[in-house]
Amino acid sequence: MLSIIEARRDGREHSAGELSFLAEAAAKGTVPDYQLAAWLMAAYLKPPSEQDTALLTTAMAETGDRIDLSGLPKPWVDKHSTGGVGDKTSLVVLPILAACGLTVVKMSGRGLGITGGTVDKLESIPGFRMDLTPQEMKAQAARIGIAITGQSPNLAPADKALYALRDATATTESIPLITSSILSKKIAGGAEFLSLDVKSGSGAFMKSFDQARELAVWLKAIGEQCGLKVHAAITDMDQPLGSAVGNVYEVLEAWSVLNCDELSPPVERFRTLCVNLCSQTLHFVGLADSEVRAAILVADCLASDAAKDKFREWFEAQGADCSFMERGEGAFASPRAVQDVLAEKDGYIGRLRADVVGETVVDLGGGRKRKEDPIDPLVAAFVHKMVGDEVQEGEKVMTVYAASDASANDATTRLAEAVEISRSVIQPNRLILEVI
Amino acid sequence: MLSIIEARRDGREHSAGELSFLAEAAAKGTVPDYQLAAWLMAAYLKPPSEQDTALLTTAMAETGDRIDLSGLPKPWVDKHSTGGVGDKTSLVVLPILAACGLTVVKMSGRGLGITGGTVDKLESIPGFRMDLTPQEMKAQAARIGIAITGQSPNLAPADKALYALRDATATTESIPLITSSILSKKIAGGAEFLSLDVKSGSGAFMKSFDQARELAVWLKAIGEQCGLKVHAAITDMDQPLGSAVGNVYEVLEAWSVLNCDELSPPVERFRTLCVNLCSQTLHFVGLADSEVRAAILVADCLASDAAKDKFREWFEAQGADCSFMERGEGAFASPRAVQDVLAEKDGYIGRLRADVVGETVVDLGGGRKRKEDPIDPLVAAFVHKMVGDEVQEGEKVMTVYAASDASANDATTRLAEAVEISRSVIQPNRLILEVI
Repeated sequence: MLSIIEARRDGREHSAGELSFLAEAAAKGTVPDYQLAAWLMAAYLKPPSEQDTALLTTAMAETGDRIDLSGLPKPWVDKHSTGGVGDKTSLVVLPILAACGLTVVKMSGRGLGITGGTVDKLESIPGFRMDLTPQEMKAQAARIGIAITGQSPNLAPADKALYALRDATATTESIPLITSSILSKKIAGGAEFLSLDVKSGSGAFMKSFDQARELAVWLKAIGEQCGLKVHAAITDMDQPLGSAVGNVYEVLEAWSVLNCDELSPPVERFRTLCVNLCSQTLHFVGLADSEVRAAILVADCLASDAAKDKFREWFEAQGADCSFMERGEGAFASPRAVQDVLAEKDGYIGRLRADVVGETVVDLGGGRKRKEDPIDPLVAAFVHKMVGDEVQEGEKVMTVYAASDASANDATTRLAEAVEISRSVIQPNRLILEVI
Repeated sequence: MLSIIEARRDGREHSAGELSFLAEAAAKGTVPDYQLAAWLMAAYLKPPSEQDTALLTTAMAETGDRIDLSGLPKPWVDKHSTGGVGDKTSLVVLPILAACGLTVVKMSGRGLGITGGTVDKLESIPGFRMDLTPQEMKAQAARIGIAITGQSPNLAPADKALYALRDATATTESIPLITSSILSKKIAGGAEFLSLDVKSGSGAFMKSFDQARELAVWLKAIGEQCGLKVHAAITDMDQPLGSAVGNVYEVLEAWSVLNCDELSPPVERFRTLCVNLCSQTLHFVGLADSEVRAAILVADCLASDAAKDKFREWFEAQGADCSFMERGEGAFASPRAVQDVLAEKDGYIGRLRADVVGETVVDLGGGRKRKEDPIDPLVAAFVHKMVGDEVQEGEKVMTVYAASDASANDATTRLAEAVEISRSVIQPNRLILEVI
């Protein structure tokens, strides 16, 4: 292990044997944590090469179970977002892709910090089973073309150990380490195609476009070296995505998109992202020979209710109470306290800080600071305006659903600081920043 | 702790509070080793500033006992070598300095790897007590001006913890970390003056002059920022120092210098180093107003037997059987196997690799690979030639004293490879490379 640490410390190439040893040692605990921590810090400061990262990723994928998805109606795709605030994209993208003839199979995690988790959103719907076994998941995917599970079998246990250590040693923000962490689980999970949504901005893990772009480039390059077919889009996460930030209400918002309801402008923006990601993915996997043709497929699939029907089929297959599809918010308990955040002056929305919105919803109880925290699925923030919108003093910019008046007060005070109003016209970020 | 790791990772300054926290945490084990390891690797790759190193050194010194030497006949000095092969300098320098009117107080360690430890050399003399308590050490120093102990009371326990971690995480070779490690113990040990012999070359921790010089500069600068008065000489350790490498025989060699015996050229070279270090130290602490006057003091002290008498007084005070002072080698069991290493051709000694000689003596049983290994005090290698010396084929270059014919055979085979003979005249390294 010492010579492996030395090689990393001195910025040299590792051998494949060294990286297998490292991954096995992390998975089995056969090397002390302090040696792994020293390697991680050396890797942070002297990043491993692309080739070493690919070898490490493969080695990590091999430390635990491997799910075999072969035999599924091909092609099958996993969709992964690096996480954002109000990011319910999977809930729309997955049924559209399934309705368009792909098989979508997703293993998803719980949220931690400001980025919500798909597991938490789905579990906020009574009855939704997130504990499908890999066998159940594969059988359901074969039957209806769509399945998701929050159960992580023993996939890439090396990543689990290294991730926990990185968290405790200030070595999380390393592109090669993030890359091997994400991809090792996807490889072990049996993915064939991987459609990545790499978020960029205040509400994302990568705060700057350059960082997000570097991560996307690495994910695609390393993924392909490891035998995955990877599509990566870099998309804006500097303001919240859509309107709702909060578990139940994000599911309702996803449903409203699939149900072709009339949408507020922020939800229109969310819909645009979903449609684009679907079109890109369909083109990428070869189900359409251009992105324009793919976009037509997606539009048809929405207009014909095929996507909406797939969503319902999916939710029913996983045991969910689908009454919200007719009853909307009325299917859930009413919020105890509702308060608005108003514009403090006339002007244009200059910023709408996704990180502050995300933190506020966590503080309301809608997210987790620590893994063991419980979630209140019924708290939320709703964003009514977008960056660039003109507003007048006193106009509603956001609304809070809270469990008490006190927490609603705290939240609106905080959210007021997330909003910057400019006197001059503001050009918002593009929604899709780059496709890699 | 995370923010402390981040500061180091990003190459920022620490606050004094952060460094105290770090030192306390290391000493008390209140922070997991993997976090300390991450900090150490970050410190290796993003070295702390001189100011931070001084703050860390002071903080480490404060984590355990502090020895109060005030009240001793002033000035009192500690002499420290970074370690070398055949480095018995302390055994000559300490009694000379004491005979010249300084008080010398030394806490010394056991040897590990190729560099021998003063404790092991002295313990090879029957009866020599290396377990003086700090109180006994101080009382003896007050009485006769010289005392040494191998007992480490709880001095700078932060260093003990960090040193063990550095050893296991490939972070030993960091100038700021070495500096804080050496000096924290000296400060806790109550030193006033510190005379440092920083070794450079194959038989030293620092293999190149530039590294050794950088360490010497740091030791002096940080020591002085911490309130120590530090003299530092950088001296050659590319070939063994003196003739004997092996515990009992190094003590005998030191005695032969103090006893003004006729000396072989390698031992003359060793004597020159000792005289120079003593002269520099006496001038530095102000007992002589020039180094030349100091050299005269040293010469007088040797010629008048004052240094030799001080050596005997010291050994008697610490309980040693002093019969070797009259009987020489005859006071010890004869070596079981003696073999010579002969010159393989005519020429000039081009190299005499101190590292290989050191490793060979460790393998003979005269040193330790691991802390718990026992020592055979009676094995040794003797060097008869120096770099630059002319030799003829078949002439004796070295002699081995071993515990068996087999180990003597192994040793001479190995030592033959330590010797390079050149056809052209060789200019040896200077003995004292620089004084800082």
